[in-house]
Formats: sequence, C-alpha cells, structure tokens
Amino acid sequence: MTDKPAARNTGCFITFEGIDGSGKSTQAHLLAETLREQGLTVRLTREPGGSPGAEEIRTLVLEGDPERWSAESEILLFTAARRDHIERTILPALEAGEIVICDRFADSTRMYQGLSRGDLRQMVDQLHELMIGLEPDLTLLIDMDPETGLDRALARKGSEERFEDFGPDLQRRMRQGFLDLAKEFPERFRIVNGNRDVETIAAQLAGIVLKHIA
Amino acid sequence: MTDKPAARNTGCFITFEGIDGSGKSTQAHLLAETLREQGLTVRLTREPGGSPGAEEIRTLVLEGDPERWSAESEILLFTAARRDHIERTILPALEAGEIVICDRFADSTRMYQGLSRGDLRQMVDQLHELMIGLEPDLTLLIDMDPETGLDRALARKGSEERFEDFGPDLQRRMRQGFLDLAKEFPERFRIVNGNRDVETIAAQLAGIVLKHIA
Repeated sequence: MTDKPAARNTGCFITFEGIDGSGKSTQAHLLAETLREQGLTVRLTREPGGSPGAEEIRTLVLEGDPERWSAESEILLFTAARRDHIERTILPALEAGEIVICDRFADSTRMYQGLSRGDLRQMVDQLHELMIGLEPDLTLLIDMDPETGLDRALARKGSEERFEDFGPDLQRRMRQGFLDLAKEFPERFRIVNGNRDVETIAAQLAGIVLKHIA
Repeated sequence: MTDKPAARNTGCFITFEGIDGSGKSTQAHLLAETLREQGLTVRLTREPGGSPGAEEIRTLVLEGDPERWSAESEILLFTAARRDHIERTILPALEAGEIVICDRFADSTRMYQGLSRGDLRQMVDQLHELMIGLEPDLTLLIDMDPETGLDRALARKGSEERFEDFGPDLQRRMRQGFLDLAKEFPERFRIVNGNRDVETIAAQLAGIVLKHIA
C-alpha cells in the first residue's frame, strides 16, 4: 500500500448518509440482504468504527464527556479511525471484488465536524486529501423530514448520545448540509425520499444499486 | 482559540529530545527542579500524553500488538494526542507565563514515525502544519552513544516496549536523525553531550535555559 490507500480497480464502494433517524442502518442492512440474494458478496460496515482499532477509537470519542475533545482533536481521531477502517476492512474487501456498504463515511465528517462544531470544513477536506483520499462510488442520501428523524433518533437514545444530542434546529441545518453535499458531488450522490415506508425505500435503493453495478 | 493553536505571547516552551536511554526524563526533572528553585513556575509534561485525553491515546497506541496500527494511523493518533496536549496543558501554561518542559515533542514524531516506520516525513510535516503549528522555543537534544542508550533503555523495559524495540542499528540511525534535525532547526536546537555524569549534564542544561530566558 502506498501513502494514500486510494488505488483499487475492483469492487464497489457504497455509502449511506443522512441525518440521525433517517433509516440509514435499516436500509443498509436491507440492501445487503437483497444484494446477497442476487449472489453478490457484500461487506456491511459502519463509521465511526468498522475495524477493531477504529471501534476502539469510536469508543474513545463517543463515550464519556462530550466536551472532552475539541472539534479538531475529534476530527483527527475520526480520521485515524477511517484510515484504519480503510486499510483493514474496506480496501481488502474491494480488492477481493466485494461490494462494500458503509453506514456513514467521510461525508458525515464533512457535515458533523465540518459544520456543526465550528466551520472546519477546510480542515476536514485537507485532512481527507492528505490521509484518506478514497471516495465512494455511490452515496445514497436518505433525505428526511428533520423533526421525524429527530423523534426516531431520540426514541433509541443509548450510551452513544453524541450524534443525537443536537436538537431540531441543528437537524434542519444538517439536512440542508447533506443536500448541499449532494449538489457538490452530483456524480456519486443519489437522493432518496426517506419519508415513505421502509419497503418502498428499500426497493428504490436496490434499483439504484443494481443499475449502477450492472 | 483559532484553528491552529500557535498564537501566544508569553511563557517559554522547552522540549527534550534524544534516543531512548539518553537520559531525557531524568534531565527534564532536574531542570524543572532547578528552575523552580529560581522561583519560576514550571509545567513538566511528556509526549505521547501530557493531558488526560492524550494519555488515553498513548495507551491505545503503545499497548497491545505493535502491528495493530499502520504507520499512518499511528501518526494520526499521535497528532490527535498532541493537539489535545497543546490545547489542555501546554498553551494554558504558556499563556499563564509558565515555563513548559516537555519530554519529547514533534521532533520525535519527525524521527520515529517519519523515519523509522517508512519514509513518511512529508506526511508528518503536512499534518503538523495543518493541525499543530506550535514549535518549541528551545529544544535540548541529549546526544548519546547509541549502544549505551540502548543498554539503558533495555534495562528498564516495561509494558510500553514499542520505543525500545528497535535494536542498535536503528538507534544509530535515530541518533543521526536527531543530529540532522538539529541542523535543520539550528535556531532552537542545542546539542548536549549525554556521555557524561548526570550532574555535569544538568548544570550545562540549566545554564543554557537560564541564559535563554534571561
């Protein structure tokens, strides 16, 4: 592997993005099932985390006092986790020709660390360019009414409360932020309306992906 | 604090560097004592670590299987630890007009991560420029016969074996690497001969520092 783990020729790297409670995890699982039923080999993973080291970093960042890390330290820790995740999980799977489905990836860092905790988007981009380099082939943005998303996220609130600790105004800004990212990277983003029943959304997503990898 | 925690006007930031077993920690303690006897307020700290968050990252990196992190992930984790250390420990002390003495700092990353685990010096420098920015006012390099240093380091080998796991050839390259860094940053480096008794070295170091802060 060279400095930047970006070189590869096979597989397909699909990420799910969207505000909390938009149904990303549910849809990622359903998509993995559908693709496996088609005989495809799928690696379902998530961020932050997705490899043993990255999961340890996830715990270090998300548990304990939310003020324990500055936005900048947090960006560095998430970038370290992402680097490990790419090296140990994502690239090996892609190089084996697998389909990698990842619940959140760099776009979430662009949004949450770049926007919500100070205007650090430029720092996020420079770090990504220097240490990550990899972009998804396809990013499925589940667009969702922010109030509904927040209600759902709060209903399942657990020990990792950081991402759900935001409130309705920030949820609205995040929704808009993701839509802006979709405009910034139109070649890989697909926006799907998340305000519908699970099966309808799943069918649309499966259609998008099967068309892409055909 | 702005993006880069580099702006400050007071205090004095002194770092100790050198190969393992060169006596950095001992001399850092003795220097702190001497300066305190002069009525100065001294913050003695170390890297990796030096703040609660950074010490947690230290544990994450240094304990367990040495192969668990790639060189690149490790550089990111050390940079996250350094950022936290600067924000929580070093800058507040400097802003209060204190003298900060730090056992290892960015020069150790330039050496150990930049040189020993692949030629990543450029990556180290770019990350430092982007996320750290701070340089010491004075760097005290204890230059030491590599074999003696290695014997001493091996004699105290503990659970954090990473830095002592190198062997004589690498110790020689590290010694030369530190001397090269001193040439690269002559305005802040002072080279002190570490092949002498502890008191003689301590007296010379105290003289250098007292002259610098006079």
